[in-house]
Amino acid sequence: MIRGPVDSSQVPRFAGPPTFARLPRIDEVSDVDIAVLGVPFDSGVSYRPGARFGPSHVRESSRLLRPYNPALAVEPFALAQVVDAGDVVANPFSIPEAVRQIEVGARALLERAGRLVTIGGDHTIALPLLRSMAAIHGPVAVVHFDAHLDTWDTYFGEPTTHGTPFRRASEEGLLDRSGCLHVGIRGPLYGAADLRQDAELGFQTVHAREMDDLGVAGVVERIRDRVRERPVYVSVDIDVLDPAFAPGTGTPESGGLLSRELLGIVRAFSTLNLIGADVVEVAPAYDHAEITGIAASHVLYELVSAMAMGVARGSAG
Amino acid sequence: MIRGPVDSSQVPRFAGPPTFARLPRIDEVSDVDIAVLGVPFDSGVSYRPGARFGPSHVRESSRLLRPYNPALAVEPFALAQVVDAGDVVANPFSIPEAVRQIEVGARALLERAGRLVTIGGDHTIALPLLRSMAAIHGPVAVVHFDAHLDTWDTYFGEPTTHGTPFRRASEEGLLDRSGCLHVGIRGPLYGAADLRQDAELGFQTVHAREMDDLGVAGVVERIRDRVRERPVYVSVDIDVLDPAFAPGTGTPESGGLLSRELLGIVRAFSTLNLIGADVVEVAPAYDHAEITGIAASHVLYELVSAMAMGVARGSAG
Amino acid sequence: MIRGPVDSSQVPRFAGPPTFARLPRIDEVSDVDIAVLGVPFDSGVSYRPGARFGPSHVRESSRLLRPYNPALAVEPFALAQVVDAGDVVANPFSIPEAVRQIEVGARALLERAGRLVTIGGDHTIALPLLRSMAAIHGPVAVVHFDAHLDTWDTYFGEPTTHGTPFRRASEEGLLDRSGCLHVGIRGPLYGAADLRQDAELGFQTVHAREMDDLGVAGVVERIRDRVRERPVYVSVDIDVLDPAFAPGTGTPESGGLLSRELLGIVRAFSTLNLIGADVVEVAPAYDHAEITGIAASHVLYELVSAMAMGVARGSAG
Amino acid sequence: MIRGPVDSSQVPRFAGPPTFARLPRIDEVSDVDIAVLGVPFDSGVSYRPGARFGPSHVRESSRLLRPYNPALAVEPFALAQVVDAGDVVANPFSIPEAVRQIEVGARALLERAGRLVTIGGDHTIALPLLRSMAAIHGPVAVVHFDAHLDTWDTYFGEPTTHGTPFRRASEEGLLDRSGCLHVGIRGPLYGAADLRQDAELGFQTVHAREMDDLGVAGVVERIRDRVRERPVYVSVDIDVLDPAFAPGTGTPESGGLLSRELLGIVRAFSTLNLIGADVVEVAPAYDHAEITGIAASHVLYELVSAMAMGVARGSAG
Amino acid sequence: MIRGPVDSSQVPRFAGPPTFARLPRIDEVSDVDIAVLGVPFDSGVSYRPGARFGPSHVRESSRLLRPYNPALAVEPFALAQVVDAGDVVANPFSIPEAVRQIEVGARALLERAGRLVTIGGDHTIALPLLRSMAAIHGPVAVVHFDAHLDTWDTYFGEPTTHGTPFRRASEEGLLDRSGCLHVGIRGPLYGAADLRQDAELGFQTVHAREMDDLGVAGVVERIRDRVRERPVYVSVDIDVLDPAFAPGTGTPESGGLLSRELLGIVRAFSTLNLIGADVVEVAPAYDHAEITGIAASHVLYELVSAMAMGVARGSAG
Amino acid sequence: MIRGPVDSSQVPRFAGPPTFARLPRIDEVSDVDIAVLGVPFDSGVSYRPGARFGPSHVRESSRLLRPYNPALAVEPFALAQVVDAGDVVANPFSIPEAVRQIEVGARALLERAGRLVTIGGDHTIALPLLRSMAAIHGPVAVVHFDAHLDTWDTYFGEPTTHGTPFRRASEEGLLDRSGCLHVGIRGPLYGAADLRQDAELGFQTVHAREMDDLGVAGVVERIRDRVRERPVYVSVDIDVLDPAFAPGTGTPESGGLLSRELLGIVRAFSTLNLIGADVVEVAPAYDHAEITGIAASHVLYELVSAMAMGVARGSAG
Repeated sequence: MIRGPVDSSQVPRFAGPPTFARLPRIDEVSDVDIAVLGVPFDSGVSYRPGARFGPSHVRESSRLLRPYNPALAVEPFALAQVVDAGDVVANPFSIPEAVRQIEVGARALLERAGRLVTIGGDHTIALPLLRSMAAIHGPVAVVHFDAHLDTWDTYFGEPTTHGTPFRRASEEGLLDRSGCLHVGIRGPLYGAADLRQDAELGFQTVHAREMDDLGVAGVVERIRDRVRERPVYVSVDIDVLDPAFAPGTGTPESGGLLSRELLGIVRAFSTLNLIGADVVEVAPAYDHAEITGIAASHVLYELVSAMAMGVARGSAG
Repeated sequence: MIRGPVDSSQVPRFAGPPTFARLPRIDEVSDVDIAVLGVPFDSGVSYRPGARFGPSHVRESSRLLRPYNPALAVEPFALAQVVDAGDVVANPFSIPEAVRQIEVGARALLERAGRLVTIGGDHTIALPLLRSMAAIHGPVAVVHFDAHLDTWDTYFGEPTTHGTPFRRASEEGLLDRSGCLHVGIRGPLYGAADLRQDAELGFQTVHAREMDDLGVAGVVERIRDRVRERPVYVSVDIDVLDPAFAPGTGTPESGGLLSRELLGIVRAFSTLNLIGADVVEVAPAYDHAEITGIAASHVLYELVSAMAMGVARGSAG
Repeated sequence: MIRGPVDSSQVPRFAGPPTFARLPRIDEVSDVDIAVLGVPFDSGVSYRPGARFGPSHVRESSRLLRPYNPALAVEPFALAQVVDAGDVVANPFSIPEAVRQIEVGARALLERAGRLVTIGGDHTIALPLLRSMAAIHGPVAVVHFDAHLDTWDTYFGEPTTHGTPFRRASEEGLLDRSGCLHVGIRGPLYGAADLRQDAELGFQTVHAREMDDLGVAGVVERIRDRVRERPVYVSVDIDVLDPAFAPGTGTPESGGLLSRELLGIVRAFSTLNLIGADVVEVAPAYDHAEITGIAASHVLYELVSAMAMGVARGSAG
Repeated sequence: MIRGPVDSSQVPRFAGPPTFARLPRIDEVSDVDIAVLGVPFDSGVSYRPGARFGPSHVRESSRLLRPYNPALAVEPFALAQVVDAGDVVANPFSIPEAVRQIEVGARALLERAGRLVTIGGDHTIALPLLRSMAAIHGPVAVVHFDAHLDTWDTYFGEPTTHGTPFRRASEEGLLDRSGCLHVGIRGPLYGAADLRQDAELGFQTVHAREMDDLGVAGVVERIRDRVRERPVYVSVDIDVLDPAFAPGTGTPESGGLLSRELLGIVRAFSTLNLIGADVVEVAPAYDHAEITGIAASHVLYELVSAMAMGVARGSAG
Repeated sequence: MIRGPVDSSQVPRFAGPPTFARLPRIDEVSDVDIAVLGVPFDSGVSYRPGARFGPSHVRESSRLLRPYNPALAVEPFALAQVVDAGDVVANPFSIPEAVRQIEVGARALLERAGRLVTIGGDHTIALPLLRSMAAIHGPVAVVHFDAHLDTWDTYFGEPTTHGTPFRRASEEGLLDRSGCLHVGIRGPLYGAADLRQDAELGFQTVHAREMDDLGVAGVVERIRDRVRERPVYVSVDIDVLDPAFAPGTGTPESGGLLSRELLGIVRAFSTLNLIGADVVEVAPAYDHAEITGIAASHVLYELVSAMAMGVARGSAG
Repeated sequence: MIRGPVDSSQVPRFAGPPTFARLPRIDEVSDVDIAVLGVPFDSGVSYRPGARFGPSHVRESSRLLRPYNPALAVEPFALAQVVDAGDVVANPFSIPEAVRQIEVGARALLERAGRLVTIGGDHTIALPLLRSMAAIHGPVAVVHFDAHLDTWDTYFGEPTTHGTPFRRASEEGLLDRSGCLHVGIRGPLYGAADLRQDAELGFQTVHAREMDDLGVAGVVERIRDRVRERPVYVSVDIDVLDPAFAPGTGTPESGGLLSRELLGIVRAFSTLNLIGADVVEVAPAYDHAEITGIAASHVLYELVSAMAMGVARGSAG
């Protein structure tokens, strides 16, 4: 018997505890299909910190989400038991320990829930999350929405930061190098070598400036062509959106995607073999009126919807 | 002799009282063609309140409006006497009494002015406004811009809220069920039945996600095909815009229209038989730098322009 | 075995669910001494709404509270089992029904917990809370911190609003008229009769402008002289603080108390017979950087500390 | 027959046009005792501009003012006909012309109203206001609340700026040099000569750092001893308050007065021969939640109260 | 030997002085190809002031710019010596003197640097900048991005304001009247004559409402067709962007360009003969989370990139 | 020949680079008496991060500081050569390396400048700063303004965080345990042992709640009695101020000092043997209108003034 969100005709949306989408806590149900996990960690950032408050902010911003997804014509929380799994503890003073804690926590949840959607936190967390995914699924395809490549090498001698998760993941063999791509890349880089090395690590790139020509449908096609039947992990750095749509983030770059574009692309993932996802880099201190938090919560809703449809299809997950 | 806005070469735009577009007050002129009315009422909201401050905020945000509309090549305030009719009093502690007060106030104004444009206030106010319109024109076509259907039934037992005006209006026979449509609908719903019941109440729907394919011209065509020669009431919930363009509102949903799209669509209404309009759900406490207020004031300007052209054509009004 | 707050050396303060002071939920413990209850209701306000978001905001702002109160030299959460009882549901569209719901909810909690501390919500909620208190304790002394008297009669015909709870309570015999007083009153009134009628309803008044002469100690003495051994209910409208210390509120008045003064006075209540308390009128949309939320959470902490000392003394409660 | 503010039991405070304290416009009454005038001008500022929006912001922030002043036990709007005289037009591109326009406008009003209270605008406007005052009353005593002396000489060659009005006024013989003083001065100066020259221009000084020792009563005594029976003009730069109490201003200095102190001092002016007053330097773009606007509106309320008592006494005015 | 920006692998982006793009100061290098100059002046504005803080805000917002421009596949700071030339002093109390100071300062820099990119400041500054350009290059083509025409005549008798620079420039013969155009014009005008006179002064117009049909490529073509081989000056009023993308500006108009559109158009200027440029009207007090500042800094980056490519081609400059 | 700040009669305060108080950079002078150093580091925080942007924010907020200190009747920048020494680089990903870098940087500066005033950054930086001080002066007396003791032991296993600098310093013998005290302590602690251990580490405590009784003079006396002739290091965590006066900080506690009190106390340090000082924990993302930044810059100004008087006296430094 699946337990859905709090009934808004009984409890006003502004009342009650802010679990994601007002879903039950993981300890309130026996079986779990999809777990939504918070990772309040931002010690890997290179510019504006604050994403440690991302999970609580996105949950608070998710109070308006309702149970029926009209674009996909499904009730995601009825197809699968979705729960809020709370926050994993991550040591703010030690990146190595935090990364270990996140990996252990994610592994434990995956063993229970099958599928995992994470609210960051900064992008550093994608590395332990990918480790936990690959441990179960082997090398995965990654669809990465971001203004930045996040395949840099080290920063002040530190190999594990929010600018490096996909390089580390590729080096460790966590990625299926024939199935990864970035969407939304823009802004200046350090050098021409950035893109060359990035390609060697397994990524194709859809630049933000290509959006006008490709349109949502064109980008979706590029993604489908790239990932095909592979198990797919989707990682959304909220800065893939233009700062107008996501002011509350750490390294904003002008010229980004519109929220309607991002939602339109993500919505198409219901036909992919979606095994895990994250939405990261929401830094609430820079947000206004939950613009960023609401965008993130809608992206998460589409990701959960796509996953729930996978659960309903009985796909591996 | 028509009296237009304060002359900005004589009085700086930041000086003087904030009537809408710096137009005269209704008591300063003898004849009135179009009245702009504030309805500071927000006791019908289900989430963030604050739209009671909408009228004063939108007026303050309208100080930059100038007399010539280049897209339509008209001077709206020269074609028709447009005035600021001030605010109607609406009891904040009683929805039924407030609804009665708004209907009475609107009726009185319509008898004097012929045409009415309202600044909300939450969307509850559309019900008494439609009553006053239908009393004069009979059932009207409604073009409704919103993220939400606003045809829900009751909420906590209350039949008259900001989520229900168009159901009540349809039930009361105020709407021409063959001529209504929503534009900009998006975000999760309560269930599949929402859309089905909505259609039975007389509405077609242009979803926000269709904007990219239809474009402004396509949406305008959909609207014209639907409303044709009917008397048209336009109701604009400012949350039809994406939160980036309208953060200052009560129930924001990601993935909305751009302001340029909304203005482009509304601008095309100069050829419709426009009898009344409202712009609602501006909640200033969540606005920043008048982003939302300025968007609302420009939409109102286009609506007034379209109406003034109707006055000049001598159409019924 | 008392269960205290989450251990901050294990879980960072920015992680985990935002119960008040990171205390356990009521369903996590068997015995309860003091319950902290949220009342997300603001349909009784006359000016800026938004206090419906007060409970979640104050809880989020209470993450920094630690277990030892050095000024009182006690560990309040070790003296008594303090829990977060979540939010009571209150109908946003019907003041009478909401008031009933709050009274019923508070009664049920009081029967379980003995002592109740409430986070508002607007000041309307003091009426049902006082009803629940008086049902158990008989007429109570009220120490009321506020910029306003809140003993007005009706407003737009409505007898139960945030400006009237103490008149209604006095009329209903809920108050011990020989033991009530206001602290922090300031700003213009409607007329000289306001103060006269207020006195007849049982209140003495310490005006904000008297603070400089009386000092914290003088005010405490005035309070003690007034309430003596009576069972005391403390009601704190956060607008008793100057807008500099509490911008996030609905009807701010200049010239208010400093947070240090308010905390100093409330801290002295550990020797009173404190049976219940509320902190109301936190309207987060007008807050900045949790200034108001943090002030409210510290006032709540001192109130809970005082109550916990009462529990430890074995006083009636 | 005196006409007071809009009745708040009939029209909610958030409704209706934002005249100061919801008082009638000057064109709505025949006789006027006290006129409240806006001067939206800020071209004389040396740092943050924006006080041109001060009058509209302070009026909007004055919606909560009620008719009875309990500290003085008077109903100021019943003692005297107080009106909102709107804004005077001041050329933003020419300080000399603006100064002329303000002087002419103030003179005309004074001839009609007897007493004038002005909402700035930057402090430049004190010069033409003092010219209009002195034209009627001869040299006046000035009680000047400010963080700054405002007796500098020229700035970038310009003799008339917000840093110079009292030097110019003293040089022109508008001030009674034996009756002027500053209150609240603080922060670094250009040199020791600043204070010396200032004294020669006729000013004594109560530094902000003296507040703790003097207290409100001590400052009031210093002021009374200085101005005695002279006709007094009170000029309040809102930056006399600490930035915590007045963030919305152009040249904030730390360590200022509390709002309670300022209101306490100004309240004592009911026994002075108060002929005119201004509150200046409210820059709304830097305000938050109307903290500054509300403080300014309360100071204005006390000034108007004091003046109304003078009108009632039949003093010259 | 060209000196580039501070190395971010050595000095974190949030550390060190905020020169534009962390480039060297002009006094740190011997040869200069492109100078970035701040003009902190806003005494020419007609509505919201504050652009005097634009240069420092845009510099602070430029800390994330990196050395490689992937869209153009160039390293602009390696192709040419780009420096931050600091701010020119402009008298805030005298438009004529300020205009003179800016012209003199720009001339001196141009003689040293060859090419100049300016950060405003309000749009008044375009006049002295164009004077300095024309003194070297003769009449220039202007590509002007703005919501407004800025070819009005006088305002309150003042001929030199932020609404008039291009009329004055055209009258003075600084413009090649066969090569100028506006992009992004929208919002109401004063009258039909505005556009007629504007055309006579030498401007074609791409209205904002044409963007959807033309697309970035279409606008670029319109620009290229208009300016051809002429020496081109690009002037970007940041209000060409919609208020969602540029809230921090003085006269915002709804319905503007998206940042991705603006960047896409400007990026195409690498093939033009770009001799100078400005980005003006950033008013930080109205910005949020540097949305506007970051957009401005990216536009500047593209302008500098285009210029650096011109330097590398050895074009006149 | 001492070089002072930029002349504000030549360059407006809003123009030019934001060095502290518009003083020269260290590379612009040959001899240095007092160096102002930025330490943009915040990886040691336990709650809200963001103090890495503190140095640039405080410098920007210091533009209004003028050269004459009237309360002390000195021109600090004429008594001693004060310079802005820029920022020290501190690795954001390694606390141990950052601490080393800060110590090395401070040592080098001290050798050149004699006296050092630091702008944080989080409070972690006090440890390396005290190491550099003690290396020269031996164990120092510390006057520590803070809401918190900062003598906790470890946090998540990390010994060096913003909650531990004074424990580490005391353990290392950097402090003269007979000469240290805290001022402004308040809010809940972890346990009674906190205060006991703190005393053993060498600190006396003036609690914030003692301010009303002691007054500024009483606190100054307590400080003087404690530190006497010892070399004194002053460390000011800006959260010693109430959140109303310092919203822009990481772990705010209600009930703090007023800015006037803090400035009054610090001003008295001109007679102490002041060898170094810091102002830390300014987190700009939570600031509003530079309230916090301006308070910090004034505290710094008083500290520099006191030091400059020491330089003039020829004291050791």
